Amino acid sequence: MTTMDEEPLQKTPFVKEIPPKAADLSEWYQAVCYKAELVSLSPVRGCVVLRPYGYGLWERLQSELDQRFKATGHENAYFPLLIPESLFTREAEHVEGFAPEVAWVTQGGNEILTERLAIRPTSEVIIGTMYAEWVQSYRDLPILINQWVNVMRWEKRTRPFLRTLEFLWQEGHTAHETQAEAAAEVAQMLDVYAEVAEDIVGIPVYKGEKSASERFAGADHTYSIEALMPDGKALQAATSHELGQNFARAYDITFAGRDQRQQHAWTTSWGMSWRMLGALIMVHGDDLGLRIPPKMAPIEVVIVPIAAGESTLAIDFAKRLQAQLRGEFRVKLDDRDLRPGNKYAHWDLRGVPLRIVVGERDLADGKITLVRRDFAPKTAGRETAVLVSDIAPTIREMLVAIQANLYAQARAFLSDHTFAPATHEEFIAKAKERAGMLDIPWCNLPECEAAIKEQTSATTRNLRTPAHGPICLACGEPARVQAYVAQSY
Amino acid sequence: MTTMDEEPLQKTPFVKEIPPKAADLSEWYQAVCYKAELVSLSPVRGCVVLRPYGYGLWERLQSELDQRFKATGHENAYFPLLIPESLFTREAEHVEGFAPEVAWVTQGGNEILTERLAIRPTSEVIIGTMYAEWVQSYRDLPILINQWVNVMRWEKRTRPFLRTLEFLWQEGHTAHETQAEAAAEVAQMLDVYAEVAEDIVGIPVYKGEKSASERFAGADHTYSIEALMPDGKALQAATSHELGQNFARAYDITFAGRDQRQQHAWTTSWGMSWRMLGALIMVHGDDLGLRIPPKMAPIEVVIVPIAAGESTLAIDFAKRLQAQLRGEFRVKLDDRDLRPGNKYAHWDLRGVPLRIVVGERDLADGKITLVRRDFAPKTAGRETAVLVSDIAPTIREMLVAIQANLYAQARAFLSDHTFAPATHEEFIAKAKERAGMLDIPWCNLPECEAAIKEQTSATTRNLRTPAHGPICLACGEPARVQAYVAQSY
Repeated sequence: MTTMDEEPLQKTPFVKEIPPKAADLSEWYQAVCYKAELVSLSPVRGCVVLRPYGYGLWERLQSELDQRFKATGHENAYFPLLIPESLFTREAEHVEGFAPEVAWVTQGGNEILTERLAIRPTSEVIIGTMYAEWVQSYRDLPILINQWVNVMRWEKRTRPFLRTLEFLWQEGHTAHETQAEAAAEVAQMLDVYAEVAEDIVGIPVYKGEKSASERFAGADHTYSIEALMPDGKALQAATSHELGQNFARAYDITFAGRDQRQQHAWTTSWGMSWRMLGALIMVHGDDLGLRIPPKMAPIEVVIVPIAAGESTLAIDFAKRLQAQLRGEFRVKLDDRDLRPGNKYAHWDLRGVPLRIVVGERDLADGKITLVRRDFAPKTAGRETAVLVSDIAPTIREMLVAIQANLYAQARAFLSDHTFAPATHEEFIAKAKERAGMLDIPWCNLPECEAAIKEQTSATTRNLRTPAHGPICLACGEPARVQAYVAQSY
Repeated sequence: MTTMDEEPLQKTPFVKEIPPKAADLSEWYQAVCYKAELVSLSPVRGCVVLRPYGYGLWERLQSELDQRFKATGHENAYFPLLIPESLFTREAEHVEGFAPEVAWVTQGGNEILTERLAIRPTSEVIIGTMYAEWVQSYRDLPILINQWVNVMRWEKRTRPFLRTLEFLWQEGHTAHETQAEAAAEVAQMLDVYAEVAEDIVGIPVYKGEKSASERFAGADHTYSIEALMPDGKALQAATSHELGQNFARAYDITFAGRDQRQQHAWTTSWGMSWRMLGALIMVHGDDLGLRIPPKMAPIEVVIVPIAAGESTLAIDFAKRLQAQLRGEFRVKLDDRDLRPGNKYAHWDLRGVPLRIVVGERDLADGKITLVRRDFAPKTAGRETAVLVSDIAPTIREMLVAIQANLYAQARAFLSDHTFAPATHEEFIAKAKERAGMLDIPWCNLPECEAAIKEQTSATTRNLRTPAHGPICLACGEPARVQAYVAQSY
């Protein structure tokens, strides 16, 4: 397997055929991204274009997250893209973590700026500054705000969705009266992310706390959800940070408490990006292309009429069917002048969960054929002839079944590739060979983590308590936590 | 009246009271923007924060536009923020128009870039480059894409919503096989904008073509909708551009036509920004603050219970009422521990169209009181006692009536301030005194427009045919078009 670390090309490569997924995940992944028209490479190094079908996936994810943010009391807002350098440098750990990957604006129109402006790599700085202005009293708390924005991190290597200089995400930023409230917020949002990952995107995840070395720059605690990719590498799918009073101190977010005493607020931040779409592609896809869980599908059902000579029976029926289904499902009629086989390949590649084939012979029997994308070609259950009168309830059931099946397959893969090594040697071997999620009692010491990384390229993904054994499987010191360890994206 | 051209402050000014709208529109406008918590000034020169209540307005506008874009066959996508300078400079007129107001990224991480990258002031360049890659044959056309993004223009002077360095907007970009199709697209999208401005935002507009000097840099034809503000200045609320084959030539968008001949595509672009919210504020607001048309209101109905001593009758009823109304209306219960008068002022300031006051005495009679925000205090019809059993249908009717009334008031203002001057002298006088929209037969000559501007500060807002008279009222040359002339934002 080649690595996914090629430099981006100026032009999107033309993909003639998608290679087998098992042969080379990286090649398969990029081929699917381009051929399914999810993304194009752009003339800007490391930046991709999110094409309409890819953006359709993003709109689905946005909608599912946004309704949950609002249901938990959050509101959307918009903060400036640019951050003056003098502000940016106020939180020492934060700037140390992010400065190396910031893009700087130094000229505006024809004027050279007296102070550089950072393009936001994340917005704690500018939002913290505004919260300081908005918060005076405990009555002004909590502030529960989210924004949907582009951010930029000047990365060396890029790959569609997983790592690009510019990406789309949401970042929630909240300020609270007490540490307990901030901690509850961070836990709540991690749960929201896990729910969306599992119930909507169909990807099982492990929740836990990040080790010190993997923590967000400036946070007291970072929590994550981690998914497992088919190549045995973990993917961090979202993070939720307890920022303590660090940013409140750096940006003067103070308030008069119930006891009249001036004190610093407790802040949090949490984010999920379009990276989640990369996980969706890798976890569910197969040799034909994408397989999109119905809840994420821009198109849930595609109708393909099979014309018989000059007769318009099939196409007329297909049009009526589309009109009938449109109120309940995201449905598309493919009435292009193309051979059916080409249409099937087109929609298989794009991962549409359910295809309805309308043929004249079937229609004569009062039937149409449903084809499930989650079943491999020629497997039992993939195609079902359904009475026209049963069509809507059958679609409804099948979409539920497809959603459940894709999740179950991903769940089984994760279970089959989560190991509790019995010995140090087994741990090291499995970490090196990228076997999956290694679940070990761990010491939680930075030098141990550095040694693991040096020896195996793996790192701790996240931690939970208590440890399942008395000693660290990596170094033999007393175990303090239970850790998932894996190589990662 | 002072002008609205102050430099932005680093800190949002504290607004104690809103000054009368008629006394000073500019002061009133900024006071409302800050005190109603629509925006805050940010520490970044010329950039504002769109706060949750302001973003709520933006979400309403987005939703109304987005559903119309999709209904007319457009899809959303996302293109990179940064544009390499060498690409940017390919369309000569375009770069000449935009270069003076571009922000440049020159450093990424610790590296000095070999080529400057422009932050998009608009995206014709990067999108045209991608369309060149995507289009090979007439079968690939039309491409109908929109994006919702931030853009940046390095302006000298700024004011919330109306002109800021960074702003939110949507930009549609389409490519077509023929000029006729492109022209139809441009006209269609101008109609969409006019419909949203009038039916949703409640602001009547004049549609027409821009003169050569007001045309988009690089376009063959620019069309606009123009609204009239209370100070007699026009505000350009959206534009729709026929780009001809100019960008297709500069960025190589070519295709094999039905006749196999290689030819250039015909492209269009069209945009509306958060500036529309500035128009909403200025046109509908009054001395109490905002008045939001119901279709644009983040909160359509606010329920204020009036507690009587220790009794919870009113608050209990208000909670049930909220639960009952929630399915149909955007409804908020204000159960804060504050005096009713303070709550009324709070929601009047924020322009919520309808207030429900729940008092124990009314409840004993089976009634509650509805208060319409569109009526001035103490005018007949502002307050209505309604039987509890009639509440939902009454709200429904009143919201329709409020939407219609706000539009009618704005319509009447526009009619009353649109003049067809009879003489050159009257035209010049009215243009100087900022009387409103001056509707004149016009020569359509650049030197005449320059002279008008020099003499009166007014410019043509947009043009239509035929002219209503034989000679230009500004210069006496033969009239070719009918023009609206006004000073403008």
